[in-house]
Amino acid sequence: MTNRSYAILGTGAIGGYYGARLQQAGCEVHFLLRSDYEWVRAQGLKIESVRGDFVLPTVQAYRNVAQMPVCDVVVVALKSTQNYVLPQLLPPLLKPTTTVLLLQNGLGAEAQLAAWVPNHAVVGGLCFICANKVGPGQIRHLDYEAIALAAYRDGHEPAGVTAPMSAIAADFTQAGVEVRLRDDLLAVRWEKLAWNIPFNGLSVILDATTAAMMASAAIRELAKLLMQEVVAGAASCDRTLDPNLIPRMLEHTAQMRPYLTSMKLDYHARRPLEVEGIFGAPLRMAAAHGLALPRIQTLYHQLQFLDQQNRAAE
Amino acid sequence: MTNRSYAILGTGAIGGYYGARLQQAGCEVHFLLRSDYEWVRAQGLKIESVRGDFVLPTVQAYRNVAQMPVCDVVVVALKSTQNYVLPQLLPPLLKPTTTVLLLQNGLGAEAQLAAWVPNHAVVGGLCFICANKVGPGQIRHLDYEAIALAAYRDGHEPAGVTAPMSAIAADFTQAGVEVRLRDDLLAVRWEKLAWNIPFNGLSVILDATTAAMMASAAIRELAKLLMQEVVAGAASCDRTLDPNLIPRMLEHTAQMRPYLTSMKLDYHARRPLEVEGIFGAPLRMAAAHGLALPRIQTLYHQLQFLDQQNRAAE
Repeated sequence: MTNRSYAILGTGAIGGYYGARLQQAGCEVHFLLRSDYEWVRAQGLKIESVRGDFVLPTVQAYRNVAQMPVCDVVVVALKSTQNYVLPQLLPPLLKPTTTVLLLQNGLGAEAQLAAWVPNHAVVGGLCFICANKVGPGQIRHLDYEAIALAAYRDGHEPAGVTAPMSAIAADFTQAGVEVRLRDDLLAVRWEKLAWNIPFNGLSVILDATTAAMMASAAIRELAKLLMQEVVAGAASCDRTLDPNLIPRMLEHTAQMRPYLTSMKLDYHARRPLEVEGIFGAPLRMAAAHGLALPRIQTLYHQLQFLDQQNRAAE
Repeated sequence: MTNRSYAILGTGAIGGYYGARLQQAGCEVHFLLRSDYEWVRAQGLKIESVRGDFVLPTVQAYRNVAQMPVCDVVVVALKSTQNYVLPQLLPPLLKPTTTVLLLQNGLGAEAQLAAWVPNHAVVGGLCFICANKVGPGQIRHLDYEAIALAAYRDGHEPAGVTAPMSAIAADFTQAGVEVRLRDDLLAVRWEKLAWNIPFNGLSVILDATTAAMMASAAIRELAKLLMQEVVAGAASCDRTLDPNLIPRMLEHTAQMRPYLTSMKLDYHARRPLEVEGIFGAPLRMAAAHGLALPRIQTLYHQLQFLDQQNRAAE
């Protein structure tokens, strides 16, 4: 059994699911919550999973980081739109050997994190999972669950497989989660964007599930063209993505159960959309290398408008 | 007073408004109607206009072209999605000197028309008007009303100011409608697309009025980028649009009263959208000259999806 302790910042679908798996596997896990705090403190966490449902009747729940212990791993599972609170949240949880694991979509957040906690290992985690929070302390896990891990190094230099990555991988593996160790964080972030940009973006713009989009020849074509722009964006940063990535992602998406993306659920709930992390940051990174991505930029402007209207209507 | 007779095919906002103006000015006007036939035959046409409301208690209304007389001018004011019925509608209305005037948005319909009625003058008309049909036989005219006229010649060669154009212009002018005579139909069609592509398209995709769109910096930027692609598309066909076109159109749109575009109203009413005329045809014309228009193509695919979903939901 592992002896590492985890702090989970943000107990939504991602933080709640993987945190529950780690606790189920014997790790010491501390959960930071906001609106669900009372419920989870009283009732624990309930996971409905394609791998079998389970309940953790007792979890260590907190409303404030000041009450939490320092941990071996701090898992940032907030929405990227909330990252501005990290300079306040992180310090009470850190000891000299703490690793910060960022479980978010989008580009650029590890570089920001590394600037905030300059003496700590920062690992990026990309979650290939269909999971939604369906109620207080209740996570529904619909499909997949693998995590790709890659270490951040200054200037996004490929960092290889580091000791903190391997330690985290051992715990997730023990928890039954497939882990892929990757040596180049920037490449794997661009790779994930190839899915998030078309499907998160269009799910909000077109008010559609993945199944409805994949049933349309027009959207299959548009998704492919958007993915080609992501591949070009990665190439502008000297990252060559796997040439089979696009057909493989389209095929996977066609076979997925009908799924409302996380961005679509944020839109429904009138939460801020991760427009900057998923669209703005890659557009700016490609532009810094002299490349325009006009289709992605079109979605970016559309989402900026929808995000603004959506929250103004609150 | 004019002695020319007009047949109006399609008595919606456009056909109803201009037809009523021509009759008010003394022209002989014959209106083809479908669902509004009984109402208009009994009640006539009612126009609420920024220029002053008026009623035509008696109009010559028809349900079928077989009952209509041949006319000097046949005005095609159907939606472009209905153009496939023109080979059946036009022949009974034609005498050797009949001119066909096409009042539609989009590109390419005059070439198709000219192939169907090869011995007749074909004139394109572009309506700069904010008008909606608000009930059977009831048109609301909100803003503007000018018409640009340009003659079609094979291969879109600039045709100059022709006699049929001048005759029609005289009647519209007498009806109080500002007419702009243009010598190059293709240039003026691309010019109009610079408005229709961003604002018709985004009004449906983003569920927004012109005012809401112009209030957003993101959408003003996107509209400008889309307009630049239209200008590039025109250039691929050897048409140089006025360099002040883009700032002028943005300025006009910002000053317009809040307006639901015709495409947005079609979407609400679950009518087929003019996706091919306004998006597909210019994309194909630019592609035939070797130019891709990626932002316009993104809107095209989005609208194909929304149009299909919208009508499937009927």
